[in-house]
Amino acid sequence: MATDQAQHEAADDSYAALEERVRRITNVSNASGILQWDQEVVMPDEGTPARAQQLSALSSIGHELLTADETGALLEELEDGETTPSSREDGETASSDLGEEQAAVVREVRRKYDRETSVPQDLVEEISETTTNAHPAWKQAKENDDFEEFAPVLEKLVELKREYAEHIDPDADPYEVLFSDYEPYIDLETAERVLERLREELVPLIDAIDESDAELTTDAFAGEFDDDDQETLARDVLDSLGYNWDRGRLDTAPHPFSSGTQFDARVTTRFEPDDLLGSITSVIHEFGHANYTLGLPDEGYGTPLGEARDLSVHESQSRLWENHVGRSRPFWEQFLPTARERFPELEDVSSEAAYESANQVHDDNLIRVEADELTYHLHIVIRFEIERDLIRGDLAVEEVPETWNDKYEEYLGVRPETDAEGCLQDIHWSHGSFGYFPTYSLGSVLAAQLYAAAEDELGQFDDQIREGEFDELNGWLRENVHRHGKRYTTPELIERATGQELTADPFLEYVTSKYGELYALEDY
Amino acid sequence: MATDQAQHEAADDSYAALEERVRRITNVSNASGILQWDQEVVMPDEGTPARAQQLSALSSIGHELLTADETGALLEELEDGETTPSSREDGETASSDLGEEQAAVVREVRRKYDRETSVPQDLVEEISETTTNAHPAWKQAKENDDFEEFAPVLEKLVELKREYAEHIDPDADPYEVLFSDYEPYIDLETAERVLERLREELVPLIDAIDESDAELTTDAFAGEFDDDDQETLARDVLDSLGYNWDRGRLDTAPHPFSSGTQFDARVTTRFEPDDLLGSITSVIHEFGHANYTLGLPDEGYGTPLGEARDLSVHESQSRLWENHVGRSRPFWEQFLPTARERFPELEDVSSEAAYESANQVHDDNLIRVEADELTYHLHIVIRFEIERDLIRGDLAVEEVPETWNDKYEEYLGVRPETDAEGCLQDIHWSHGSFGYFPTYSLGSVLAAQLYAAAEDELGQFDDQIREGEFDELNGWLRENVHRHGKRYTTPELIERATGQELTADPFLEYVTSKYGELYALEDY
Repeated sequence: MATDQAQHEAADDSYAALEERVRRITNVSNASGILQWDQEVVMPDEGTPARAQQLSALSSIGHELLTADETGALLEELEDGETTPSSREDGETASSDLGEEQAAVVREVRRKYDRETSVPQDLVEEISETTTNAHPAWKQAKENDDFEEFAPVLEKLVELKREYAEHIDPDADPYEVLFSDYEPYIDLETAERVLERLREELVPLIDAIDESDAELTTDAFAGEFDDDDQETLARDVLDSLGYNWDRGRLDTAPHPFSSGTQFDARVTTRFEPDDLLGSITSVIHEFGHANYTLGLPDEGYGTPLGEARDLSVHESQSRLWENHVGRSRPFWEQFLPTARERFPELEDVSSEAAYESANQVHDDNLIRVEADELTYHLHIVIRFEIERDLIRGDLAVEEVPETWNDKYEEYLGVRPETDAEGCLQDIHWSHGSFGYFPTYSLGSVLAAQLYAAAEDELGQFDDQIREGEFDELNGWLRENVHRHGKRYTTPELIERATGQELTADPFLEYVTSKYGELYALEDY
Repeated sequence: MATDQAQHEAADDSYAALEERVRRITNVSNASGILQWDQEVVMPDEGTPARAQQLSALSSIGHELLTADETGALLEELEDGETTPSSREDGETASSDLGEEQAAVVREVRRKYDRETSVPQDLVEEISETTTNAHPAWKQAKENDDFEEFAPVLEKLVELKREYAEHIDPDADPYEVLFSDYEPYIDLETAERVLERLREELVPLIDAIDESDAELTTDAFAGEFDDDDQETLARDVLDSLGYNWDRGRLDTAPHPFSSGTQFDARVTTRFEPDDLLGSITSVIHEFGHANYTLGLPDEGYGTPLGEARDLSVHESQSRLWENHVGRSRPFWEQFLPTARERFPELEDVSSEAAYESANQVHDDNLIRVEADELTYHLHIVIRFEIERDLIRGDLAVEEVPETWNDKYEEYLGVRPETDAEGCLQDIHWSHGSFGYFPTYSLGSVLAAQLYAAAEDELGQFDDQIREGEFDELNGWLRENVHRHGKRYTTPELIERATGQELTADPFLEYVTSKYGELYALEDY
């Protein structure tokens, strides 16, 4: 007993020491988050040189704290406790020295520790410098519609990221390693299976829509809308969804984003005079992200237990609210009167016209961020296939433009005429973010799976949405997703919440039913 | 020669290592500055728990980096180089291994290092906790007009700060040690001499004003003024003074302040409907602070060479602009037309009436932050005398209210009827900030000394101010004060800029001449 007691106490001490270290790392990282928000939203133009140094200092400090020998030693002590059978008579293993939550913290820290310690710091710095320079090169190339300007930088980034992946796991497929930077627990095979399924099913569905005779209203929100009034309406939207203003705020930024912690989760958006609908859906999307963050447990703040599961789960929350709520018929029945108050010119728009306008499918669109719910995923599939082949060495950088255009022609039936509206349109590769794109589609797929599971349990939400009542839906998400933070791996979280593995079925059922009805498709 | 070369290189390496460390510490501290700005200006109400942890983490990291053994070792190496005569034949000492700027960096880091390493961390934490709790206790006591509620906390703070001072220098007067936290290079004797002089000269001047028959306009800005229009006018003021918006911004905050770096120096203010004049002078005051920060050299960013000299010099800049510019006759001749554009109700106000209203002396005012240019310093003298005696043990906490009231009666001829408008009015002591108050008056004194020196060199600025031309004045301040950062100690900086030690003469000449004329005083 005395030995057991001593073992327990040692584990407690080690865990407390690890947690203290993790809290410090998290607080440094959250401080960086505030600095980045500030930079995007309020920083004066010429503040950049100082801000870059501040962010770089915090980033180095966080890296050094994480990769310090002390972190490794603490992890080993705690893991030893987990795996060595104890001498206790009840036959339990010593793993119970760590509770489930503590074990989850150790698992998450170990994962980051292993990755960050395996990549040499000079490679990290070279990647950082290269991406810093890649961004203006990409911007210039896009402006000049000249892929050649960007090609050498892209080449270099592919090389460096391949090297990076090899340091992390020399035996693994390098693209898989990069993908797991963004989605650590969903294996690439699953992601590939889902994306392939989307391509197979969506291509014919979009074709059928293209051939449909249905005439949807597309111009319910045509016109010019004042920025200030749009902002007021954006606040109305957030009010109506139940955004907690005591822990959040809305600002404008060049690219909409949300960031923060469970105590302070902020939303940004932008307003274009001729895109009222875009501003509404974008605010709902960012609400979904912020709402997830706000649902993380207060008491978990500072450790992985108080942090969002990774990108796919985050995106599932934004897309659930944007699409399943914000693009639904009952939402527009409920929200249109508010919109009419702010914009009397919408007086003659019916909720059905608004619903149709919010759900039109345009298969001739070349730009991902302007895509509808269906074609969007073909944009993603194309990027996924190209970046995977690039990283695997199966595609040369110089072949990217033609491959891109061929795939657009094959999957979407349109061929970009320029690289600016082709393979140069997205910023991601200039950041070296290979493996990021798939998480967007996985997010949509998971959104549908979660929404279906919630409706299975609680019944359809349509009536509640029509009443502007979101508490039950949000309560389900809080209970089944948000409050768990990183306690479970992504597959565990999905399984617990929905009773199933990640599957595209609910998403395909959702879009088939919705667009089959909207476009009066016979076979759907 | 080879040995010399090696010595040089070793010193270069040590200096580079120290500088890297200092840059990191500075960047962490500047990141905290952004987090604090965010907390005051934009943070949602319930963000505090996370923010407190973020700030505490950054503060601990900064402290640990500064007080690490490595810092001490580097300082010793560099100081050895400075004091040991070298073997070079030209007879120079090795001190020239460090240039003047590098030596200044070593001096400043050494000072902070010695102070922070000499105080035990548990005492620092106890002070921090005690002040955290003291703030609500003070607020409550002030609301209830009950000094007894605050007395035990104040007692505790006096004790802890005395202990703190003893750790830093057991042989020194503890109040002197605390004072030097805010004003490291002006010795207390000088500060005392200046404050005593102010008291001796201002009491009779204020008496004479009190007895004067002059009838000044006091109500030029009476009325209710819209917040948004006040903000527009505040931006006009900043425009007209030449604020660099590419490196700054204006926001509202409960208590006006300015903060930031030479790349990003922000101003905040607040607007009261019935205090247009207060908002204008407060914005000019904060402009003075921000303008100093913006004048620090870009290339010094990250080290003491790019940081402001301490509180008195900072305050000299805010008061120079607030008083010597913003309360001058030519300023109102120049600015009133702009104010009239924003507020047509000011149409019948003459610039003379505006000037008089901005300079009325009210000797029956009990509140420091509402005081005029003259009585202000008696408010400071009273606080200085009381806190000095408290820390020295010459005054008991329970005696504070009566002593306070007696001194108000003696120096200002008014006696507070409550402690809320007496010794409980200021927040400073609840922060444990004993020794801070004197820097306000030293700032005014130095402002007058600098302004006089600038006029001695360049001639009177009145005509330029009347034209809204501030480049020459600002150029002089940039050249003689701002660009030096912490390169010189405060006395050196003052001597170089003005050719004199710190002296109250120019301030007394300024107020005597200004108020003698305004109030038609015969003997002035």
